[in-house]
Amino acid sequence: MDQVRALVFDVFGTVVDWREGIARDAGAFLKRHGRADIDPRGFADAWRKRYQPAMEECRSGRRPFTRLDILHRENLEAVLRDHGLDPAGIAAAELDDLNRAWHRLDPWPDTVAGLTRLKARFIIAPLSNGNVALLLNMAKRARIPWDAILGAEVAQAYKPTPQAYLRTAEILGLRPEEVALVAAHNNDLRAARGCGLRTGFVTRPTEHGPGQTTDLAPSEAWDVVATDFVDLATKLRC
Amino acid sequence: MDQVRALVFDVFGTVVDWREGIARDAGAFLKRHGRADIDPRGFADAWRKRYQPAMEECRSGRRPFTRLDILHRENLEAVLRDHGLDPAGIAAAELDDLNRAWHRLDPWPDTVAGLTRLKARFIIAPLSNGNVALLLNMAKRARIPWDAILGAEVAQAYKPTPQAYLRTAEILGLRPEEVALVAAHNNDLRAARGCGLRTGFVTRPTEHGPGQTTDLAPSEAWDVVATDFVDLATKLRC
Repeated sequence: MDQVRALVFDVFGTVVDWREGIARDAGAFLKRHGRADIDPRGFADAWRKRYQPAMEECRSGRRPFTRLDILHRENLEAVLRDHGLDPAGIAAAELDDLNRAWHRLDPWPDTVAGLTRLKARFIIAPLSNGNVALLLNMAKRARIPWDAILGAEVAQAYKPTPQAYLRTAEILGLRPEEVALVAAHNNDLRAARGCGLRTGFVTRPTEHGPGQTTDLAPSEAWDVVATDFVDLATKLRC
Repeated sequence: MDQVRALVFDVFGTVVDWREGIARDAGAFLKRHGRADIDPRGFADAWRKRYQPAMEECRSGRRPFTRLDILHRENLEAVLRDHGLDPAGIAAAELDDLNRAWHRLDPWPDTVAGLTRLKARFIIAPLSNGNVALLLNMAKRARIPWDAILGAEVAQAYKPTPQAYLRTAEILGLRPEEVALVAAHNNDLRAARGCGLRTGFVTRPTEHGPGQTTDLAPSEAWDVVATDFVDLATKLRC
């Protein structure tokens, strides 16, 4: 990691707890619409389940690159229908507001403290499939001290497409080996390593709730492995 | 300005003093190459004079969008030749380092204090023709507290092309009237107003040195006019 100048971060699951944040806002929404019977965490999982297929339309070229706010909004309507709610009967402004729950996710407890230490030695930026406005509003609300907001929208390519990693390094003016991806997901790190980036794995064992079975341990010898962002800062001598 | 959620800033001349910064690094370079006879400020002016024509190649469509670091590097070679220095006789790494003088410009004395106050109420980001790496390295060195790094490279259009302003608002997830451009240049503000953005003029009467004759006063009734960034923060009740 000695050559690394910039740390770029996966965000959903790695920096913030999307499941509890979405469940919080979805729960209030469902209650307002008389559907307190629907489990908000299950609703969050169902919304998230449509994330990869929606991006795959863009990755495959069947659809031009479309920012995540728009994909999330389309997916929200589908998930509401799946739960027996008709989105056409709900004010657009209220759906837009629920869609922006993705802008209001809370960081894990160690996130801001760890990033603040890492920022003293490295450039720190998100490399997320979230769009700029989503990541910026999230950071502003949660005081996440990014140096820049990068990711799929700036690179115009969704991870794990190689261009998402390579264009991010190029925009930073750095060679791939001068950039490390930090993520709680082995498949994201595998794609980054394939592009020549360095890799840091942080375990987030409750991203998917208490019964999580995936990404509980590194699947390869990543360049650094940490239990959280504060541990990562210590391991990188920050 | 009551609807405004984000302030976006011109950078060269408005946020930082490019002339003194370039003169400082060019002066040391010229002395090393036995050319202490060349006035470093004149060299800075000559380098800067090639800025608009180089971007015009991209704006006109004669050349695809090309990031400013590359245009600056080409212009540097031309300016050296104009001063009787052969760039082919100088190590590429040394030219690259001088080219990165644009990443090492100092802010005006009020910049960081003003932005820190403005950041409490507004999203703040550069909307510069500088590329992301340039603006990010500059901010990191000078502790400029941007919320995001935006501008021509992210919008893929050089100011004053309308897309530079309109795509920046769109990326922020805001309507044009929710974004204000802050600049020390009347023509930049005129283009932003033409796109529906709000406008803030800050006077930088020595950007071009003590004999400056341009942009000493607002040419139109901009939405806010301030003497510096601290005054701007006060006028915007930050």
